[in-house]
Amino acid sequence: MSGDPRLTALAASLPAAVPFVGPETQERRSGRGFRARLGANESVFGPSPRVREAIARAGAEAWMYGDPEMHDLTRAIAAHHGIDAAHVKVGEGIDGLLGVLVRLLVAPGDAVVTSDGAYPTFAYHVAGFGGVLHKVPYRDDREDAEALMAQAAEVGAKLVYLANPDNPMGTWLSAGEVQTAIAAVPEGCLLILDEAYADCAPDGVAPPLAPADPRVIRLRTFSKLHGLAGMRVGYAIGPAPLIAAFDRVRNHFGVGRVAQAAALAALADTAWAGEVRGRIAAARDRIGEIAAEAGLRALPSATNFVTVDCGGDGAFARAVLAEMGRQGVFLRMPFVAPQDRCVRVGCGTEADLDLFARVLPTALSAAARAA
Amino acid sequence: MSGDPRLTALAASLPAAVPFVGPETQERRSGRGFRARLGANESVFGPSPRVREAIARAGAEAWMYGDPEMHDLTRAIAAHHGIDAAHVKVGEGIDGLLGVLVRLLVAPGDAVVTSDGAYPTFAYHVAGFGGVLHKVPYRDDREDAEALMAQAAEVGAKLVYLANPDNPMGTWLSAGEVQTAIAAVPEGCLLILDEAYADCAPDGVAPPLAPADPRVIRLRTFSKLHGLAGMRVGYAIGPAPLIAAFDRVRNHFGVGRVAQAAALAALADTAWAGEVRGRIAAARDRIGEIAAEAGLRALPSATNFVTVDCGGDGAFARAVLAEMGRQGVFLRMPFVAPQDRCVRVGCGTEADLDLFARVLPTALSAAARAA
Repeated sequence: MSGDPRLTALAASLPAAVPFVGPETQERRSGRGFRARLGANESVFGPSPRVREAIARAGAEAWMYGDPEMHDLTRAIAAHHGIDAAHVKVGEGIDGLLGVLVRLLVAPGDAVVTSDGAYPTFAYHVAGFGGVLHKVPYRDDREDAEALMAQAAEVGAKLVYLANPDNPMGTWLSAGEVQTAIAAVPEGCLLILDEAYADCAPDGVAPPLAPADPRVIRLRTFSKLHGLAGMRVGYAIGPAPLIAAFDRVRNHFGVGRVAQAAALAALADTAWAGEVRGRIAAARDRIGEIAAEAGLRALPSATNFVTVDCGGDGAFARAVLAEMGRQGVFLRMPFVAPQDRCVRVGCGTEADLDLFARVLPTALSAAARAA
Repeated sequence: MSGDPRLTALAASLPAAVPFVGPETQERRSGRGFRARLGANESVFGPSPRVREAIARAGAEAWMYGDPEMHDLTRAIAAHHGIDAAHVKVGEGIDGLLGVLVRLLVAPGDAVVTSDGAYPTFAYHVAGFGGVLHKVPYRDDREDAEALMAQAAEVGAKLVYLANPDNPMGTWLSAGEVQTAIAAVPEGCLLILDEAYADCAPDGVAPPLAPADPRVIRLRTFSKLHGLAGMRVGYAIGPAPLIAAFDRVRNHFGVGRVAQAAALAALADTAWAGEVRGRIAAARDRIGEIAAEAGLRALPSATNFVTVDCGGDGAFARAVLAEMGRQGVFLRMPFVAPQDRCVRVGCGTEADLDLFARVLPTALSAAARAA
């Protein structure tokens, strides 16, 4: 092999770009650490003390591969939801599950539908397997389920992606609206219902589970409410034949022993989950107040972040974001207009939000001066 | 989507079989736990106490995604080997890295060469991306590098796989033999040199690193000597353009924060690595003695396991393995004749090997009665 690696035609066609630049990369570039890490939709409230104990205990067993069937965790998740374990597949976070799902269903040239500005990692996986992405605009800062299904029918999509509650906007469709969308999934198409934030949302956002329904696969994660983004555990709930198909291509030992132990402990600690839900709700209110005091509008949110309309265009919001970063507050923002008039603020600790409140007015002034 | 999932033609063609059945699955089937876990080439000596501390500490930070660039760990690995970080890519264990590598290089129909009986997970990934596997027999229980390269040339292989030291046999090629093999890699082909066990081996097994060499990519892991199989961290060392190409398709946040912290601590604890190397060497000797006392021959090993010739055919060795399992000792064995006359015994603790020594004669008797 001489010179360039002899990549497949597909791999050679892919950009070197990555879906997200991490906050650590920004810190290394600037030479300064962030003082409030509010940009990655993580849970600053952390994993529960019991989960931390479980991680420490599992460290002594880290020499053993994790159970590749993930038997105990899968059954605990199934019991938690009151469904059969044949409908559950655990994977390396929703990112990992999306990769497997796209690989199973999308051949080069296959059509896939998503919202313009929705989760970039899904688009990354679709491109990575040669799928052709068709995008539908948001409507009033919410995913437009009707337009998504119409587009899926029009292009004969294999997959259509819908996040509910939505990232990056924090908005949601009601359970009834989602059920209407499921009923409209075209024949031959599968709806990926990304519910990463569902357990941060109030009742009435996630429709009841109907795991045998062949039209939809639902994705959940331990990265958000449970504070385990750094452990990489998510799961899919879907029809048994599709769930079983994951075994054909997944990395069987990919969810390690410590990660499985952490997720199992997180699932059991319902008191902590309830407490974090309360802290998230309080932080959402506080972010709304801080935004209002600065003359801005916070969008309604059913997630662990709040998207704040900066009141200008994308360039203005990017200037706000950059200045927030310089002041030590890590945020992210939507990529696509007109949603990119907003910045996305994670539900921080009181100290995090105190800093956010202090810095926001000066960031707005700086952005206004730069405009 | 009604009925069966609309898989791609490739996914639909894949078997539901998995590369390995985990010991936990066997335990669930039998209703009994193993008393000695010696079948998965894990390090029973565990991660170092410092690594366990690092895991416990990192648990408090598990709410944060890991750095997707894996900056600190990548640089620590590069410094450890005295090479530039542009030649290093960390991934979710060698299994994860193999998946990415095959995906980058193997399109449906592309030829790939490996040894018959070599690492099944590599074959699994090749099949999973539609590659066509050509197999070369072992020669005197060692991988036959000359035949591998000749076969690669004959079929125009994109990839040729060579494990050194070898799994499942524990045998090795000398550094000189590997360098001869590298010199014989056909134009347009890449050698995957799987060195999972290289840091369990004596000097003179792994050739010096020449990371810019476009003919070879080398794979290392924290799962073996460092006792972190349950954390999923491995790395590739190779030419910078190929290493950079991983970013086009890999799961960027796939190596979590706790896993990165654990690997970093493991790399720093050279005293522990040295101690484990000594324990492995002692256990290898002891397994050889136990085998000899039972009238069997242990193959020479440069790994953390010893492959023991049971003195019969595959059916006999399978009977020995099954009886060992019933007696509480988890082992695995080669899949392919004539290597399947052997069982593979991990370097256990003294208590593990005491049990192995006690059980082996009765397992041999039971297998002889069954024959």
